[in-house]
Amino acid sequence: MKLSGVGELALLETLRKKFTKKTVGLVLGIGDDAAVIMPGGKQTLLATDMMVEGVHFDLDWTTPYQAGFKLVSVNVSDIYAMGGRPRFLLLNFAAGENTDIKVFNRLFDGVDLALKTYDITLIGGDISSSREMVLSATVIGHSGRILRRSGARRGDNIYVTGRLGDAAAGLELMKIIKRPVEIEKNRTTDFPLKWDIIKSLIERHLMPVARRPVKFANKASSMIDISDGLLLDLSRICAESGTGASIFLEKIPVSEGLVKAAEYLGTPPHEFALGGGEDYELLFTAPAREKVDAFCIGEITDRGLKIIDKTGKAEKFKLKGYRHFAG
Amino acid sequence: MKLSGVGELALLETLRKKFTKKTVGLVLGIGDDAAVIMPGGKQTLLATDMMVEGVHFDLDWTTPYQAGFKLVSVNVSDIYAMGGRPRFLLLNFAAGENTDIKVFNRLFDGVDLALKTYDITLIGGDISSSREMVLSATVIGHSGRILRRSGARRGDNIYVTGRLGDAAAGLELMKIIKRPVEIEKNRTTDFPLKWDIIKSLIERHLMPVARRPVKFANKASSMIDISDGLLLDLSRICAESGTGASIFLEKIPVSEGLVKAAEYLGTPPHEFALGGGEDYELLFTAPAREKVDAFCIGEITDRGLKIIDKTGKAEKFKLKGYRHFAG
Repeated sequence: MKLSGVGELALLETLRKKFTKKTVGLVLGIGDDAAVIMPGGKQTLLATDMMVEGVHFDLDWTTPYQAGFKLVSVNVSDIYAMGGRPRFLLLNFAAGENTDIKVFNRLFDGVDLALKTYDITLIGGDISSSREMVLSATVIGHSGRILRRSGARRGDNIYVTGRLGDAAAGLELMKIIKRPVEIEKNRTTDFPLKWDIIKSLIERHLMPVARRPVKFANKASSMIDISDGLLLDLSRICAESGTGASIFLEKIPVSEGLVKAAEYLGTPPHEFALGGGEDYELLFTAPAREKVDAFCIGEITDRGLKIIDKTGKAEKFKLKGYRHFAG
Repeated sequence: MKLSGVGELALLETLRKKFTKKTVGLVLGIGDDAAVIMPGGKQTLLATDMMVEGVHFDLDWTTPYQAGFKLVSVNVSDIYAMGGRPRFLLLNFAAGENTDIKVFNRLFDGVDLALKTYDITLIGGDISSSREMVLSATVIGHSGRILRRSGARRGDNIYVTGRLGDAAAGLELMKIIKRPVEIEKNRTTDFPLKWDIIKSLIERHLMPVARRPVKFANKASSMIDISDGLLLDLSRICAESGTGASIFLEKIPVSEGLVKAAEYLGTPPHEFALGGGEDYELLFTAPAREKVDAFCIGEITDRGLKIIDKTGKAEKFKLKGYRHFAG
């Protein structure tokens, strides 16, 4: 059955039934003109993002379930990157009249998995028609201490929370595979790389899980999530903090899977790790005296953005990373 | 110059400079992973909406300035309809690579006018590329007393804050005019109706101003804004409140301009007033003992949705009004 055969009101009612639940701090959820929350004296964080079919995701490769999960993850990642705890979600959905109701349902199943993963509640949104599918989400969170991009200081160490480049390599693999891979059902695909490598990489691209900064939030001086690539996002921290940075190429953590896939793809692994977006690992700085359980990849300097290779040779950043409307 | 020649980062920087201002309750605005507000013990209201080119607006008829203004208005209207005061705005913008920078700038000029009109602050958002233009906004507001849809009680009077049907008639006129009318510059157009009539109607469609319920908020028992048509929105109040309603056809306020345009369009004025969406007037109920300075159009009953004409004949609602994916 098509969305045009179901109607907006019935779709909204489905969501209302599926997602309504009692939640601390929630006064009024789905179903009125606006949602109402009661933050109780805490600071409220707000992050919003839009995902457009054909730009941010491709339904020829991505299942609706994956798109729904990812939409929530990228916004949750922004809240985590500020040291916050995500609490609530607003979601706008637009798609063509001829979209199958199964697509709608699977997308919201993916949203539901994300809600459970991050322990958040869907409290409102909007459904409308469009040509290409468009999703936009706003995540609302709370925080005591806010971690801004601008807090890095000379001498701080630079950390990342996990291996980089997997999502970018996963995207390159998807461009070759060119059809949906239902990693959530653990389906295999014929490809000259082992399934567990393929799965680990494309999963990072298709269904990224945001990193909760639980162990670092009270030690970090600045933080950002890596959505547009290590170099580009680090340059943002430096620009906001008025500092430079040096990173050590061989200290950047990469997965074994990335090394193998990079060889297959004919691109050096560090190209993915430095410039590849959508890893959704956290990039943060902390004073050198703090003991931090994460990958230390460099240090904050007075000025200049440098990559130092294993021979000690320093090279200036080339700012690679995903930018819309890049000239 | 095209957006692809400017780049996402430069566009964001433009917005940051244009819209950054100190605001009470705002901890951190545009430029980090998330915005941070400090609600100070009040209830926080959240409303979100998406506008898709070709569905919600047509750039062949609507100027970017008008689209930007309207995007904010429709969300502010949702906050007002809950008895709230709008405070902050998050805005996502997506458009084609070849979009002219002037379109971007004029759209945000329209957003800026709306921010000043409603005294709110833009605190974050996202810019990306797409084929058709897509805008989504989230408005955050505060409120003491929340006005829900569910508070109507038998015997309450039903009120609207202004004349209905103008926006729907304006839309029909725009379908004939079929080119942008820069009402903001007071441009005339050749058409067999007086310019002041055309202007008043198409302005309601192109640049609606949300109604602040300042005089009614403490008297109303339920409230909704008329975005999808009087009958459809009233049926929502009744469904949520578990009541019926009777409205008196001749009490529904219509403008002189609507009467003249309706005659020209060959449709009875009350068709626009009952079923036409996007008036963004408020529809509310209040106990009959309250003195209310608004148009009383009927009363809440036990059950049934009835329109009573001047002869006293009652007819059931036909639920007209805009619905996406309407079968």
